[in-house]
Amino acid sequence: MKNTFGTCVSVTLFGESHGEYIGAVLDGLSPGVPVDRDYIAHELELRRPSGKISTSRVEADRFSIVSGVFEGKTTGTPLTVIIPNESARGADYARGLPRPGHADLTGFFKYHGFEDYRGGGHFSGRITAALVAVGAIVKSALSRRGIAVGTHILRCAGVNDAGFSDISREIAELDEMQFAVLDEGAGERMREKIEEAAKDGDSVGGVLETAVTGVPVGVGEPWFDTLEGVIAHAVFSVPGVRGIEFGAGFASADMRGSESNDAFVLQGGKIMTETNKCGGINGGISNGMPIIFRTAVKPTPSIFKPQRSVDVLKNEEVTLELRGRHDPAIVHRARIVIDAIVSLALADMLEARYGGDYFGGGE
Amino acid sequence: MKNTFGTCVSVTLFGESHGEYIGAVLDGLSPGVPVDRDYIAHELELRRPSGKISTSRVEADRFSIVSGVFEGKTTGTPLTVIIPNESARGADYARGLPRPGHADLTGFFKYHGFEDYRGGGHFSGRITAALVAVGAIVKSALSRRGIAVGTHILRCAGVNDAGFSDISREIAELDEMQFAVLDEGAGERMREKIEEAAKDGDSVGGVLETAVTGVPVGVGEPWFDTLEGVIAHAVFSVPGVRGIEFGAGFASADMRGSESNDAFVLQGGKIMTETNKCGGINGGISNGMPIIFRTAVKPTPSIFKPQRSVDVLKNEEVTLELRGRHDPAIVHRARIVIDAIVSLALADMLEARYGGDYFGGGE
Amino acid sequence: MKNTFGTCVSVTLFGESHGEYIGAVLDGLSPGVPVDRDYIAHELELRRPSGKISTSRVEADRFSIVSGVFEGKTTGTPLTVIIPNESARGADYARGLPRPGHADLTGFFKYHGFEDYRGGGHFSGRITAALVAVGAIVKSALSRRGIAVGTHILRCAGVNDAGFSDISREIAELDEMQFAVLDEGAGERMREKIEEAAKDGDSVGGVLETAVTGVPVGVGEPWFDTLEGVIAHAVFSVPGVRGIEFGAGFASADMRGSESNDAFVLQGGKIMTETNKCGGINGGISNGMPIIFRTAVKPTPSIFKPQRSVDVLKNEEVTLELRGRHDPAIVHRARIVIDAIVSLALADMLEARYGGDYFGGGE
Amino acid sequence: MKNTFGTCVSVTLFGESHGEYIGAVLDGLSPGVPVDRDYIAHELELRRPSGKISTSRVEADRFSIVSGVFEGKTTGTPLTVIIPNESARGADYARGLPRPGHADLTGFFKYHGFEDYRGGGHFSGRITAALVAVGAIVKSALSRRGIAVGTHILRCAGVNDAGFSDISREIAELDEMQFAVLDEGAGERMREKIEEAAKDGDSVGGVLETAVTGVPVGVGEPWFDTLEGVIAHAVFSVPGVRGIEFGAGFASADMRGSESNDAFVLQGGKIMTETNKCGGINGGISNGMPIIFRTAVKPTPSIFKPQRSVDVLKNEEVTLELRGRHDPAIVHRARIVIDAIVSLALADMLEARYGGDYFGGGE
Repeated sequence: MKNTFGTCVSVTLFGESHGEYIGAVLDGLSPGVPVDRDYIAHELELRRPSGKISTSRVEADRFSIVSGVFEGKTTGTPLTVIIPNESARGADYARGLPRPGHADLTGFFKYHGFEDYRGGGHFSGRITAALVAVGAIVKSALSRRGIAVGTHILRCAGVNDAGFSDISREIAELDEMQFAVLDEGAGERMREKIEEAAKDGDSVGGVLETAVTGVPVGVGEPWFDTLEGVIAHAVFSVPGVRGIEFGAGFASADMRGSESNDAFVLQGGKIMTETNKCGGINGGISNGMPIIFRTAVKPTPSIFKPQRSVDVLKNEEVTLELRGRHDPAIVHRARIVIDAIVSLALADMLEARYGGDYFGGGE
Repeated sequence: MKNTFGTCVSVTLFGESHGEYIGAVLDGLSPGVPVDRDYIAHELELRRPSGKISTSRVEADRFSIVSGVFEGKTTGTPLTVIIPNESARGADYARGLPRPGHADLTGFFKYHGFEDYRGGGHFSGRITAALVAVGAIVKSALSRRGIAVGTHILRCAGVNDAGFSDISREIAELDEMQFAVLDEGAGERMREKIEEAAKDGDSVGGVLETAVTGVPVGVGEPWFDTLEGVIAHAVFSVPGVRGIEFGAGFASADMRGSESNDAFVLQGGKIMTETNKCGGINGGISNGMPIIFRTAVKPTPSIFKPQRSVDVLKNEEVTLELRGRHDPAIVHRARIVIDAIVSLALADMLEARYGGDYFGGGE
Repeated sequence: MKNTFGTCVSVTLFGESHGEYIGAVLDGLSPGVPVDRDYIAHELELRRPSGKISTSRVEADRFSIVSGVFEGKTTGTPLTVIIPNESARGADYARGLPRPGHADLTGFFKYHGFEDYRGGGHFSGRITAALVAVGAIVKSALSRRGIAVGTHILRCAGVNDAGFSDISREIAELDEMQFAVLDEGAGERMREKIEEAAKDGDSVGGVLETAVTGVPVGVGEPWFDTLEGVIAHAVFSVPGVRGIEFGAGFASADMRGSESNDAFVLQGGKIMTETNKCGGINGGISNGMPIIFRTAVKPTPSIFKPQRSVDVLKNEEVTLELRGRHDPAIVHRARIVIDAIVSLALADMLEARYGGDYFGGGE
Repeated sequence: MKNTFGTCVSVTLFGESHGEYIGAVLDGLSPGVPVDRDYIAHELELRRPSGKISTSRVEADRFSIVSGVFEGKTTGTPLTVIIPNESARGADYARGLPRPGHADLTGFFKYHGFEDYRGGGHFSGRITAALVAVGAIVKSALSRRGIAVGTHILRCAGVNDAGFSDISREIAELDEMQFAVLDEGAGERMREKIEEAAKDGDSVGGVLETAVTGVPVGVGEPWFDTLEGVIAHAVFSVPGVRGIEFGAGFASADMRGSESNDAFVLQGGKIMTETNKCGGINGGISNGMPIIFRTAVKPTPSIFKPQRSVDVLKNEEVTLELRGRHDPAIVHRARIVIDAIVSLALADMLEARYGGDYFGGGE
């Protein structure tokens, strides 16, 4: 399936940047999960552009849940969210003039020119709003099982944030922050750098760090649905992601085995690992420690500097100068999308292991 | 599905480190693809341990193709390879004593103690021999379409290899090398470092770099089967992988958009990108440039130093000293496994796009 | 996936009988397929209740295509249709009082009482309107490849229709009929019988016969995606279906092999079968002859006679007398749903075989 | 996936009639299910040809379990069974001369002549031996949950068997019978008729009736994985099946709703249906009553009478006279294959609902 992810719990995404509606169908989530519209709105708010460091296209994201919720709870049948595009300005876009770093060129050749090219069409980051909406519901479901997901901006425009130290508390705090950092000073410096790049008509990238706590031991499948593989599959769907690493990640390459291995120890009668170089995963399966991964996000490809491109209809080189409304950085908005998609991936694997009623039941 | 990967072209893996056979079922590959037993043997040879830098468990890998090949060519129906375990020594392993860095602990809890714990059982790197065998067939199929896949050891034990420069030629050369580097001097230094670690009873990791040439424009699906997502999903199945990055990868995080974007240019009437920061992929879809990614491989977890662990049957801490036969590095063996699994992932996406006869036809 | 069918071309259904919207996401259909809103409306019209032989709940089916169509053609990305429920009267339904023959009881136990029980909720035949809407688009796509699908009422309330004789012409005619029969006299007698049953507060069933012409040789997969298996899987999704048979079907059981086999002959240089006992399918694969199958549809379960049931909340027996608006027969409405779902199943298998652009291209 | 069925519990089939091995990979069954080699051998025995009413090709079916079983129980990782073809006589078959009623012609066009054409190759009923072997394990797993599956020959060569009356007892008895009938006299008359047909060089078909008891309420998915749809999908994989009906099946078409509906009643405090016209399924979901379905099996297509066919290599009509060893009926052998595949389909749906440990645990 192309625009569907997951098996036991699945999400299907639809819509285009400048179409009538974007939306998502969430299927398979247990019946009886309370659906809190305010929390969905809150999560959409965290994704929404704001201030000088974001695009001036601000969508109200007036979502409707048109199926799958009855008397405030999931029914267990498909839950559909639709969100109108209210601030679309399709006229800003021209056919056959691919913007570097975007999917315009590949979309043109894949869909033979029939794609909705306006603002990236179906490839647009806009679609992630629908993902965040259903992701919020899934996050709520996970929390009923003591599982929490949170992401902070570990690095942006060359500025480092602090690392996770007291993960559970920090995840809760991140869920209240518009610009998600653990060290507020670092966040301020990042925002300055983003504004600086914006003034230059340019953009910046960053690294996100995600932690998941509370996943029971034994989730994931060797060959081939490893936790890392499934999470990576999901995360690369988020536009702009260029890399992912778990636990010690790329730094492991320079370690020795004695340094890279996590010893098993008993803490309060429970088996834990002394360190967490493996990011909470052994052999593709959760070991009960926090799952930790980092995602590399490239700078927003939409910049206001002149760029070389090719007019694919005339087959001639051109210089492209973008107009329209664009983000000088998306890393701070992408983090809530990562949370959403990882929540979905985990919910799917948890229901695969524990069955379809895992998240449900009474209030 | 748990041990099956792919939809149009799929592989199902089975077997345990110390069982009777390991094997793989390759399904959906076009009928009429010539199957060269010598090339399969050659690829298995590249995966096989050798010399001081590898385990002394050397399996002859006497594979049999028991279905799916008729008169030297694929039939289009399931192709099954089985390989006997001829050098198994299960007595080296004890139940309930998880080795750090391995799947022993998570396997125990996932399968409730019913798993074959000897030598990692179904989690063992041994199983990758079957993957390499069918991967060799898929690689041959890809080459009929002008697609080549190759991986070199970009970094090992702190030593850097040269980068790709003349990719097509280099891929061909790598397929002949037991220790796959572009700079032979670097390779020698890496092997010295591996031997050094082995003497210490320790192990080392590394980074692999993979290039794929010849993939047509337009392969991959946004939301959610991006090329990056599907390749990452596949690659994280290879034991020991902790990270993956495409194109400029994590370095993108520190770039500006003007630096991270690849300009589109015309070369000989064909649209190319001037640089390849995106690793041949825009919006999850191939753009016709070489697909480039790097994989972080952790040091082999089996080391001969004493390590802390927990006896899960007695629930008490123990000190573990491994015996048995182990690799001080697997990075040089893993590279051919990466080639195999990536070939499978690509073949699947290519048949999804172009249909089930894409690789077939007369000799 | 629960509410998604198909792999290369897939459909995801959502909505409830008395919810805000019902809808469907059609994914994977080739880009460039013209979308004719009038034809969709026409197909919805064929499904709509009419006159005395149908429910008095008549929905206008004012569908919106909210994604996946651009400048009148499919984009190749998810195509979403939503249809508002404008004539919902949820108050007619009570919780925990399962209607015999409906999914009320099983839904209650499956979803633990969280399901939207009004009018069958997500199980309602109402949802098939969304299926018919996207099915109309898929039917158009099939016709671009010379493939036609049509269904007539072979038997209803004990009255037989004529059999197919000149299939291609008859399929075209059926697509214009509100009550799809080959023999108009038989149709009249059927309608009389339906009205008769309605007067008794009862309902009737029937048998539908479907023909598909133009499917190329070689579509279908032995073990396990046989044409029969995939079509049957799809068709049993249509509410009320109790059986399906292909070609000579159940009558084959009393034949001898010499009678049941279809001889191969040459007609105009093309290999055909002399008879079509196998319904156009050998070994699960299309043989180029028309695909023929028959579907048994049970009488509508909603009847106005008193029925025994159990109040599941009080766990006591009750006598149920239904109110509301119900069909004395659905067989004449179901036929267009069969066409839709079979078209989807075939489109999926055709793209699996011939690739994702099979239906696309310029107008 | 082509030769894989199921998601949570899946089976992958491989092999050809005259290849080296046939086999099956069973994946996802809970760890800890006892594997009884004698019971597997017993089930294979029930499938094996015997006496005058079967082919003289009798394979010993010396199966090996080469992975996935450890210390007599399932490990939870892929369980692979291989069975050698010991009595293959490929020389009996000629290329390009399609036998009527077989998959020779469609196989030729689907696989472009690269298929192993000997004895039907991968399409051969021979492959069902592997299905029966893993099916036996799954049946054992089901029985741990109180679920029993059994099939009798309801009709063969015009002779009717008695219907089910005391299902649980009858299922147990059927599992001991080589020729599975409820009325031994009917069985004798059927065998006479089969021998009669064999003497004529002809063959006969029949109808099988299957009952499944003990399936909990709430298994199955509306839209699109209905119990009927999934079972039908599975059952049509069995060679020779031309139709399937659930509960009252095709007879429902002539009923009125008041007759076709099953009233809900309380029996011993449990909700039951008074009748079982719906075959234990409401809205695609199990209602706790026995699941009942009937399968139409066509006469064996291999007959010894001269038949018209076409030499596809020369494109000219020919008269075909089959040699080799063939069954005058397969209905009595097919019944155990039906049991196997239905057990697999149910195990998949049960683990989807209740999680991956549903069948496992201690002895």
